[in-house]
Amino acid sequence: MKTKDKIIHAAIELFNLQGEQNVTTNHIAAHLGMSPGNLYYHFRNKEDIIQAIFDRYAEQLNLLFGLDDNSGSESVGGLRTSMRYMEAVVGLMWQFRFIYENLPDILSRDVVMAEKYRQIQEPVYGLMTRHLLGLRAQGILLANDEDLDALLHLMKQVLIFWPAYLHTLTPGGNITKAMVYGVVPRVFFMFRPYMAPEALDELRQLEQYFQDKASQSRVKEGVDA
Amino acid sequence: MKTKDKIIHAAIELFNLQGEQNVTTNHIAAHLGMSPGNLYYHFRNKEDIIQAIFDRYAEQLNLLFGLDDNSGSESVGGLRTSMRYMEAVVGLMWQFRFIYENLPDILSRDVVMAEKYRQIQEPVYGLMTRHLLGLRAQGILLANDEDLDALLHLMKQVLIFWPAYLHTLTPGGNITKAMVYGVVPRVFFMFRPYMAPEALDELRQLEQYFQDKASQSRVKEGVDA
Repeated sequence: MKTKDKIIHAAIELFNLQGEQNVTTNHIAAHLGMSPGNLYYHFRNKEDIIQAIFDRYAEQLNLLFGLDDNSGSESVGGLRTSMRYMEAVVGLMWQFRFIYENLPDILSRDVVMAEKYRQIQEPVYGLMTRHLLGLRAQGILLANDEDLDALLHLMKQVLIFWPAYLHTLTPGGNITKAMVYGVVPRVFFMFRPYMAPEALDELRQLEQYFQDKASQSRVKEGVDA
Repeated sequence: MKTKDKIIHAAIELFNLQGEQNVTTNHIAAHLGMSPGNLYYHFRNKEDIIQAIFDRYAEQLNLLFGLDDNSGSESVGGLRTSMRYMEAVVGLMWQFRFIYENLPDILSRDVVMAEKYRQIQEPVYGLMTRHLLGLRAQGILLANDEDLDALLHLMKQVLIFWPAYLHTLTPGGNITKAMVYGVVPRVFFMFRPYMAPEALDELRQLEQYFQDKASQSRVKEGVDA
């Protein structure tokens, strides 16, 4: 791995474990057994590192949501596609949880970052809109335009602030991957009143699938701890 | 006004306008035309001021939600009571918006504060639970225990992170009271699928009431600006 990548990886790890605001560039250098001077050769400061992490985050988003794929085929899929998207969201939330835990603070520090964040998020919400419209066209979702818009925005807020919300529930404690999975039933709950009766069975199966995933990661965390 | 109160008021004002993380005790002293030494006579540091603000916030919560009133009468009311609670929430959110805008960061810095925050919030959620159970007993809300619990937690998350969410939508910009009112239709939207059909008319009236409030404060902001 290149030194630059090593620094980015170490920063993500330390930010996630100790909270971004508690980690300095010196901590990152020390963690890598590197001199601060060597780190500064690659990154001018901590904001510079965070910007590079945002670029990685954007790459992952593009990859997981197929945003580079211009075929438009993504918008079709049914609830299995919804499941795939939820898995991608939970995975990203876990991988880059420090961003979600402290988002307003990180964005308020740096106008460039705030703009970058917006540019990263926009295509995802475009995709989500098309996906929900697709579910409606297939008769899976029964919602008028206004309800669909409200659902989309509510889902957006609940997802983005889930890790931060978890933190207010367990102040000082670290959040676990099983806890991050807890957002899935919450999102499904919001959509349930708008699901076609025939689709509720499949939704229940998906809920079970995510519950199993959450308990698996709970077991794994237990073993690792 | 006592000097201590003046400091608290100035701190709330500056934190709200400029973001808590951007304001130092020196800024607060300068804003009051006071020497830093005089400020330090009253408060050891910024965290000390924030703790005093948390105490004010707790007092306001107690007052607005009648938490000191042990008669239990609060839990009865119908949708008019829900409206009163929503007004109290929006008012507090506006008055102490810096807390909501940067909650995980503030709580992560100080274990005492995190504990205080939990102690402040708990009785409110107890009251909200009793209120929702009361609405159900009156046949206004049609939800089983599981749904009621999910609604309560969803409402909690959406309310607490509303100002932070607004900030991610308008990075760098200040939020307005009209924007804060925007949380009301979002909360009502979550409850709508669980409302008795007879209650939907009253809910629509309440939505209209809050829409008018929001536009009034939009006009006022326009005049004030």
